Amino acid sequence: MANFSPLIDELIEALRCLPGVGPKSAQRMSFQLLERNRGGAERLANALQRAVDQVGHCRSCRTLTEHEECRICSDSRRDSSTICVVESPADVLAFEQGGDYRGLYFVLMGHLSPIDGIGPEELGVDRLLERVKTLSVQELILATNPTVEGEATAFYLAEEMRRLGVSVSRIAHGVPLGGELEYVDSGTLAHALKGRQRFE
Amino acid sequence: MANFSPLIDELIEALRCLPGVGPKSAQRMSFQLLERNRGGAERLANALQRAVDQVGHCRSCRTLTEHEECRICSDSRRDSSTICVVESPADVLAFEQGGDYRGLYFVLMGHLSPIDGIGPEELGVDRLLERVKTLSVQELILATNPTVEGEATAFYLAEEMRRLGVSVSRIAHGVPLGGELEYVDSGTLAHALKGRQRFE
Ligand SMILES: [Zn+2]
Ligand SMILES: [Zn+2]
Repeated sequence: MANFSPLIDELIEALRCLPGVGPKSAQRMSFQLLERNRGGAERLANALQRAVDQVGHCRSCRTLTEHEECRICSDSRRDSSTICVVESPADVLAFEQGGDYRGLYFVLMGHLSPIDGIGPEELGVDRLLERVKTLSVQELILATNPTVEGEATAFYLAEEMRRLGVSVSRIAHGVPLGGELEYVDSGTLAHALKGRQRFE
Repeated sequence: MANFSPLIDELIEALRCLPGVGPKSAQRMSFQLLERNRGGAERLANALQRAVDQVGHCRSCRTLTEHEECRICSDSRRDSSTICVVESPADVLAFEQGGDYRGLYFVLMGHLSPIDGIGPEELGVDRLLERVKTLSVQELILATNPTVEGEATAFYLAEEMRRLGVSVSRIAHGVPLGGELEYVDSGTLAHALKGRQRFE
């Protein structure tokens, strides 16, 4: 792509660090910004720099935040007897948009993946165990992704929690509400069948 | 979307200035950068800032460049008797990738659009006329887009050039090479039919 000026080539290349942005869209983005939205480009440059400089992890739940403790952890109206364990900050948002959950979260920032050198330590499991004890947590809800790694992570955490005598649950997996069976993948369908409950 | 920390919300909002990026992908991009690619985020912030600060327009052809004159205009091996007029820097790249064209370019950075207040002055037409005279240009190739505005712009420029006695041509429009007729839009097909040439 070394076809424009070096600075434009650099910008096109740098935009490709964004997920889902290939060479063609990076080029389109660069021109759009330089031709029509330099204000937007500067705002984006600042927002990126400020987020990189200031956003770290919540000391209690590990989610991304620029504060010591995130908005949810520092909200005294949340029910601290329940912790929902998720893989990423986006999962927290998904639950919050549902609006029904009033407990706290713990964000692993990933899942167990020995091949990538990601073990319990990298996921902050010590921190989670400590929180469970400090807050006298009654129930730990495992909401890791329904993938091989997510399941393995849930299994590992369930074992650890049982040792502490904490009740552990796993969110239900199956056919999405409003989903049509023919569009659901076969793994989900097999799972939904295996997890069937008596109709009463 | 005001659901994360203010800085993350700001980053998500700022990413939406990129063409084709909606709220969901902006969110995914923000997390991806903050969780896994802070180096990439910083490089992008710098590339944006440097491009905004330093990239301007070529004094000869108006394309985007951080130099006084762009790489093509300052290349003495290019044929300065021919100028190809395009709407945007991306069009220059498209021609250069074809590799056959050895003349110069003039980049309008848009097309005539009275409703948006874009007239000949905004497109640098004076600068183009001056160049045509200075370089003793023999042929001006009009390669504006085959849209209503692009055609109107080509028509306007053709009139101006005829006054200077410069030969003017328009690139051919029709069914793309390798394109299948059934997938070509009806406007293109009508154009291709109207522009048919005797088969010899
Ligand atoms: Zn927190
Ligand atoms: Zn130039």
